Amino acid sequence: MTKTLIIMSHPDVTQSSSQQFLLAAVKGEEQIQVRHLESILTARGSEHFDKTLERACLQEADRIILQFPFYWYQCPSVMKQWMDEVLMLNLSQKNKMKEFGIVVTVGTKSDRYTAGGSVGFGIEELLRPYQALANQLGWEYQTPFVIYQFQYLSEIQKQQLLVDYLYYLENGSHHFSEKEKWMLERMANYENTHTQQVREWIVELKQEREELVMMLSEMGNEADGF
Amino acid sequence: MTKTLIIMSHPDVTQSSSQQFLLAAVKGEEQIQVRHLESILTARGSEHFDKTLERACLQEADRIILQFPFYWYQCPSVMKQWMDEVLMLNLSQKNKMKEFGIVVTVGTKSDRYTAGGSVGFGIEELLRPYQALANQLGWEYQTPFVIYQFQYLSEIQKQQLLVDYLYYLENGSHHFSEKEKWMLERMANYENTHTQQVREWIVELKQEREELVMMLSEMGNEADGF
Repeated sequence: MTKTLIIMSHPDVTQSSSQQFLLAAVKGEEQIQVRHLESILTARGSEHFDKTLERACLQEADRIILQFPFYWYQCPSVMKQWMDEVLMLNLSQKNKMKEFGIVVTVGTKSDRYTAGGSVGFGIEELLRPYQALANQLGWEYQTPFVIYQFQYLSEIQKQQLLVDYLYYLENGSHHFSEKEKWMLERMANYENTHTQQVREWIVELKQEREELVMMLSEMGNEADGF
Repeated sequence: MTKTLIIMSHPDVTQSSSQQFLLAAVKGEEQIQVRHLESILTARGSEHFDKTLERACLQEADRIILQFPFYWYQCPSVMKQWMDEVLMLNLSQKNKMKEFGIVVTVGTKSDRYTAGGSVGFGIEELLRPYQALANQLGWEYQTPFVIYQFQYLSEIQKQQLLVDYLYYLENGSHHFSEKEKWMLERMANYENTHTQQVREWIVELKQEREELVMMLSEMGNEADGF
């Protein structure tokens, strides 16, 4: 089973509706481990991370996800501290290729993130330091998963986000064309393991199942093209 | 007089030969203020910065320089913490335009920082988050001042670095063509205010003065072109 490790940083995670939503989405998923860095430091009663433990978690994972709010176009300081203390060049040389993804929440509209927008650069360009890190560590960089203005998403958009997010955690940015098939296969499991809110969304998603099945059968082998 | 504020972060600054060199270079310069962030937190006996004080320092400065070693293609975590705690969008709206520069020390060779190199991206692209920050705050971004592999520089190269660095702190990335003239004008002052090591370099630089004067007179008005 593919193991996904989410390294998450948020200085006030209980007050973050987006992070709470994402945490609810993975609750009960055995193959996904979440490490909230601020909580780890608090629990340790230390200013520093346990490098040995953190590196062991990285070694075990097949897919490593950094999940954080975008503060000044970078991760929060505690995640940077984790990077500075834990990461090292020969971390994963003896293991098979790891996949490395970014889940980033952005408080402003996506149209600022373009040449000519007030930020002036696309988000993939702003995330280059993480891509360079992947290059140096020999990790396979995945297309970043970007969530703009979570607080303004409709319920329908949140349902779609839930599916996209879970798919990204289990499959990276590969095979996005297979997403709807995957969702149908996974639905039964989710119903048993998730929180009430997530289950309610899934019930609604199931109502769309017939529609999806029809769409998929119409598309057939053309599915790889969209 | 133009005021330059250097916000500097290094977790072990006394052991850093490059940071000690740069600190020696600005010692005694009245118009340049250095704030070493790790020392500030230690002196405060706090985990957090004094936002009011830090913002006041920013308000007073005409030129703001972030100076740091490149750790995983970003600043160290304490500088990120300073950014997260201190910076805010309307910080400098009432003041005249500020210039914003980056002085970054890099431990590896410059040829890694290209497409096809092991890092895979140029350093200016990796520094885009700081450029985006300048865009958002309304600060004028200066060409980053990058120091590769300080420990392997020859004495001659360090002399040149000293001049280039001081010039950058006082003039930003503008008017680099005027640098030699500026150096000659400033030499007399440096002799009285700097440490023994810096004075020794300046003595050597003065020996090159005749040569420079000759070069400048030959170049005349063509100086803007190089």
